[in-house]
Amino acid sequence: MNDIAYYQNIFLKHLAANKIEGEPATLYDPANYILQLGGKRMRPVLLLMAYHAFDDQIEHALDAALAIEVFHNFTLAHDDIMDAAPLRRGQATLHEKYNMPVAILAGDVLLIKSYQLLLKNPGKADPLKLLTIFNKAAIEICEGQQMDMDFESADDVAEEAYLKMIAYKTAVLLGAVMEIGALMGGASAHDAGLMYQFALNVGLAFQVRDDFLDTFGDPEKVGKKPGGDIIQNKKTLLMIRCLAHATPDERAEILSTEGSQAEKIDRVIRLYLKYEVDSATQLVQEHYYNQAMQSLDQADVSTARKDVLKQFAKWLLERTH
Amino acid sequence: MNDIAYYQNIFLKHLAANKIEGEPATLYDPANYILQLGGKRMRPVLLLMAYHAFDDQIEHALDAALAIEVFHNFTLAHDDIMDAAPLRRGQATLHEKYNMPVAILAGDVLLIKSYQLLLKNPGKADPLKLLTIFNKAAIEICEGQQMDMDFESADDVAEEAYLKMIAYKTAVLLGAVMEIGALMGGASAHDAGLMYQFALNVGLAFQVRDDFLDTFGDPEKVGKKPGGDIIQNKKTLLMIRCLAHATPDERAEILSTEGSQAEKIDRVIRLYLKYEVDSATQLVQEHYYNQAMQSLDQADVSTARKDVLKQFAKWLLERTH
Repeated sequence: MNDIAYYQNIFLKHLAANKIEGEPATLYDPANYILQLGGKRMRPVLLLMAYHAFDDQIEHALDAALAIEVFHNFTLAHDDIMDAAPLRRGQATLHEKYNMPVAILAGDVLLIKSYQLLLKNPGKADPLKLLTIFNKAAIEICEGQQMDMDFESADDVAEEAYLKMIAYKTAVLLGAVMEIGALMGGASAHDAGLMYQFALNVGLAFQVRDDFLDTFGDPEKVGKKPGGDIIQNKKTLLMIRCLAHATPDERAEILSTEGSQAEKIDRVIRLYLKYEVDSATQLVQEHYYNQAMQSLDQADVSTARKDVLKQFAKWLLERTH
Repeated sequence: MNDIAYYQNIFLKHLAANKIEGEPATLYDPANYILQLGGKRMRPVLLLMAYHAFDDQIEHALDAALAIEVFHNFTLAHDDIMDAAPLRRGQATLHEKYNMPVAILAGDVLLIKSYQLLLKNPGKADPLKLLTIFNKAAIEICEGQQMDMDFESADDVAEEAYLKMIAYKTAVLLGAVMEIGALMGGASAHDAGLMYQFALNVGLAFQVRDDFLDTFGDPEKVGKKPGGDIIQNKKTLLMIRCLAHATPDERAEILSTEGSQAEKIDRVIRLYLKYEVDSATQLVQEHYYNQAMQSLDQADVSTARKDVLKQFAKWLLERTH
């Protein structure tokens, strides 16, 4: 999509020209390594789009966009340690390429640098207001990560708790990013709040879809075998809803590790279809998507700039992975 | 010492009344656990003293003092993981009591909370100025920790690099804390800078003394057997200076692991005394102490409040450990 590529390119140029500088290299090389591993750069793109909805001079938003990408990479560095993940985007994670102490410390320095960068050029916004929004999201992200870790060993997870977890772990940062971008561009508090709601709900729809695709996605498009979440007994929305309907026997069937992995996946999918949690989950996704569109419609933003944001939401949700 | 106990008590009351609140408890219990492990509370005490040098209403400085203690505990949580330390103040470290992922995440949330707390009540200071000082020190602390880790495997460490490492790892935060406290109390930028210099140099003197005591301290008073640094070939100021004087044969003798630990310690101490690095190191400590006093003398602060700060410096440097 042209418009998204436009923002991505502007950001990538800024990123390439603004390496995190400092000494010793044993600290800053790892910090820059993770930053250049790639990715969709979704968060800085969202910040630039939100800024652009209210002001044309998007170069003023580049440092804040970088701040958010640097912050996001702090979370990746630390999450990869916590998850003992060997690979990120097909390359060695920070603790694998260097070591665990360096990965912790590089993550720490990225977090602190993100504060420095956020304050560098606050545009038309009150920098303290930006910090308040940023801090709130940053704390919620930590809480979401902890909830996610707690859920791994939990027998039952309430749907409400699951939705809070995915909101905190993924969606609140998207919301904060757009609120920050909008305020920097001169948006009213009301419009910035609508931007927050737009991105929050797009993020929730994205996460619900991501879980859905893990089980029901086209393996060719998703790029991995379906059913990974089922094998891990992961408490996704599909699983939580299915467990809520299941009889005690079915519940035992779902959680049982008997037979092959393929048999387990078949068994659970049969129950998902029996209780129609596949279509129910798609309704949840649509609900969030519609909420996002409603917020966007209410914002005092030109139709052209709204269309770019709508295209972004579509693009994100049509991605198979 | 009465005056220090006075500030400690005020701070401890505030700390007890202001637990870090939030959910899930699996994240916040660990965060509060490390905060209540005790310690001298040197950093918040310094902040309160610096504030008090310029303004009487020290209750206005309590949130910032808490911010600094929370920040300090973030560094402790992560340093303990990096050092694989099982104990802190005689109790289990965070990763030992819980687990490594929780210790990383609790550290992260403490770091973010410290920003929130610092902005809660900036007193008479420009909050953005406080953030600038805080960010600079926070980044230097990460750099100092990385340098310290790098030095462990380095054959040679230049004296200049060693002094930079101890400044970054310990002293700059003391400086930043006093500069922040002073500005909050209404100090001029000049006086706040003098407070920074005072605490920075006290911190340097403290660190040089700490290394000295590891080899030459009275074991009864220090509370541990002398020579730990020698056994680990740690590049302290004593060791760096001794290696600079040593002949190639003596150098081999210093780094050799032959014989018992006691023999190695004796061997190295003999060379320390031969090259008089013990007294030279004490001169370095005195130099920093005198620098601290000079900065304090120049500050526009009442004699009574200066005396409290002088007592603090003495108390810190007369501690055996």
